[in-house]
Amino acid sequence: MPLKDEYLLPAAADMHVHLRNAPGPIAELVTPTIRPAGVDVVFVMPNLAPRPVVSVDEALEYKRQLQAIDSSITYLMSLYLHSSITPDEIRKAKKAGIAGVKAYPKGATTNSEWGVLSFEPFHDVLKTMEDEGIVLNLHGEVPSSPADGVTVMNAEAKFLPTLRDLVTKYPNLKIVLEHCTTADAVETVRSFGENVVGTITAHHLSLLVDDWSANVNNYCKPSAKSPSDRRALLDALVHSNGKFFLGTDSAPHDITAKKGPGNTAAGVFTQPFAIGYVLTALDEALARGDVAPDAVTDTALAGFLSGYGRAFYGVAAAEGRIRVRRGAATVPASFKGATGAEVVPFRAGEGMWGVEWV
Amino acid sequence: MPLKDEYLLPAAADMHVHLRNAPGPIAELVTPTIRPAGVDVVFVMPNLAPRPVVSVDEALEYKRQLQAIDSSITYLMSLYLHSSITPDEIRKAKKAGIAGVKAYPKGATTNSEWGVLSFEPFHDVLKTMEDEGIVLNLHGEVPSSPADGVTVMNAEAKFLPTLRDLVTKYPNLKIVLEHCTTADAVETVRSFGENVVGTITAHHLSLLVDDWSANVNNYCKPSAKSPSDRRALLDALVHSNGKFFLGTDSAPHDITAKKGPGNTAAGVFTQPFAIGYVLTALDEALARGDVAPDAVTDTALAGFLSGYGRAFYGVAAAEGRIRVRRGAATVPASFKGATGAEVVPFRAGEGMWGVEWV
Repeated sequence: MPLKDEYLLPAAADMHVHLRNAPGPIAELVTPTIRPAGVDVVFVMPNLAPRPVVSVDEALEYKRQLQAIDSSITYLMSLYLHSSITPDEIRKAKKAGIAGVKAYPKGATTNSEWGVLSFEPFHDVLKTMEDEGIVLNLHGEVPSSPADGVTVMNAEAKFLPTLRDLVTKYPNLKIVLEHCTTADAVETVRSFGENVVGTITAHHLSLLVDDWSANVNNYCKPSAKSPSDRRALLDALVHSNGKFFLGTDSAPHDITAKKGPGNTAAGVFTQPFAIGYVLTALDEALARGDVAPDAVTDTALAGFLSGYGRAFYGVAAAEGRIRVRRGAATVPASFKGATGAEVVPFRAGEGMWGVEWV
Repeated sequence: MPLKDEYLLPAAADMHVHLRNAPGPIAELVTPTIRPAGVDVVFVMPNLAPRPVVSVDEALEYKRQLQAIDSSITYLMSLYLHSSITPDEIRKAKKAGIAGVKAYPKGATTNSEWGVLSFEPFHDVLKTMEDEGIVLNLHGEVPSSPADGVTVMNAEAKFLPTLRDLVTKYPNLKIVLEHCTTADAVETVRSFGENVVGTITAHHLSLLVDDWSANVNNYCKPSAKSPSDRRALLDALVHSNGKFFLGTDSAPHDITAKKGPGNTAAGVFTQPFAIGYVLTALDEALARGDVAPDAVTDTALAGFLSGYGRAFYGVAAAEGRIRVRRGAATVPASFKGATGAEVVPFRAGEGMWGVEWV
């Protein structure tokens, strides 16, 4: 039994987005796609290049620039965990409404050159975050290392002991394990209390390693993995109970960074059709028998796509509502900006669920 | 301790090459690179498109076309295992000097649409091959299947039970497990008698999954895997004792098939620098401590690069000799043919070992 052909849902929340430098051609291309996609609140990643967002003032300026592009979205801002951040800056962040601090293991992904080698030096900052209720957002991978047997396929599993250490040391710290891709990660997040949750992207609900091996537009970090890992993510979606919610990690890269002469940038662009991608993944999972039909309830969808993320970040419940209809849209071959930027979306060319605000 | 700066070696044998349709732009570009690379005998794969080589007459015609491009190379020809091949054709192949029959699991790799679903229907052909001494060359992967948990990362390991079944059923059949990529494959090949051997490519001695994840020119089937798998391949090279020898699986694809708008073709192009790639991989392995310095003997190199493959296929020992010198060459950004074909080689732009005939 496939999904229904139409859902009425609360406005969605996307708790992991990359909007890139603003002002800037990619931000100006991508930010206006948020609201038409049925989303009214986003958690914005701080890994700008060449310099990430490492202070409250920078985060607030970035927020103003995003509001100048589209003032109708609630932007939850974050800092990039870095040695320049002090406990005082964390307290300032709390007062300024900054929602989280993102930790990137150095070398693990795009724009992580400024990242963390060890959490030890950040003890005072983490303790203050725990006290102040500022969320720690984790890119949960260790850097690849032949000597340690770490590759893109097990980098997330190898990070999980670090997550366990953090939870033990800071038991009340609110933590998001971002973009979970493995059954191990799902199981580990479930083993902790309600202050530890995971985000799941739209594309990891569909993709396997085979899908990105030959298609650069499907390649991202953490990489998509095995059929059993995908099943665990689908199960986390339909049996979330608040532990897992949508964070698309929508990561726009200009087409030249994907198909150009150099190496391929990691990232899948899902912003304009995120809800449709989730529903398409569920339809496909139902067809494979990976998900039980009666598990896909309106309550589970509304929680995963909207309510659970808002509740975790203390954002008011959605006021707006959206109608999502099967086959009402088509994913274009690419999105082109006024200034020459071009980004290829996930599932380019496919028929897709459409979104209307109601 | 790195390798020496210079080696005098017997002419090399490359027991797994893709030269593509001849006459044709890729064949005309690639075939002339064999001899300057220090190689005088190649085992030629039959997976031409749109129609593979499925008869002795086709194989001999293909051989004539390759000889027309470069008559100085010994071309060991093969057939593509297919329902149209009869035991009589195998006997005819033996008389005509055809060296092997390649089996492609249907759907596992490039041009495998004509491939094998099960070996059961080929019993009479395989029995005749065993009797006649015709080699069975195996692309040792099962097709990816979410339902069965098969991905590009475990497709080779999942094929090994089939190899075991074949060895049990045809104990005297000469079998090559082509392009071994895993410790499991190496161990399995070692567990059989001397009629079962493995080829190892130049690029799998260097690459890991991380190296192809972001670089389409490093993507191939079977895909490169983990550090421990790579260590097993390096160990198989230096401790071959005839069980493993060079088969580059050099797989030229036009640059548009790698970087164009569609999906990425699987294959790494290594023909012009295969020996240099092997030595570079060994140098890097020595630097990492993956190979013991005293294991890299001239005897081991000469056997892997030349003698063991010739012995297995019953080709006379090399008469020519080559001098291989560190840093005497540079890998070009690409190879361009007279008719517009362009192929990007492995390690494009890097300094490389050079080869001279002496």
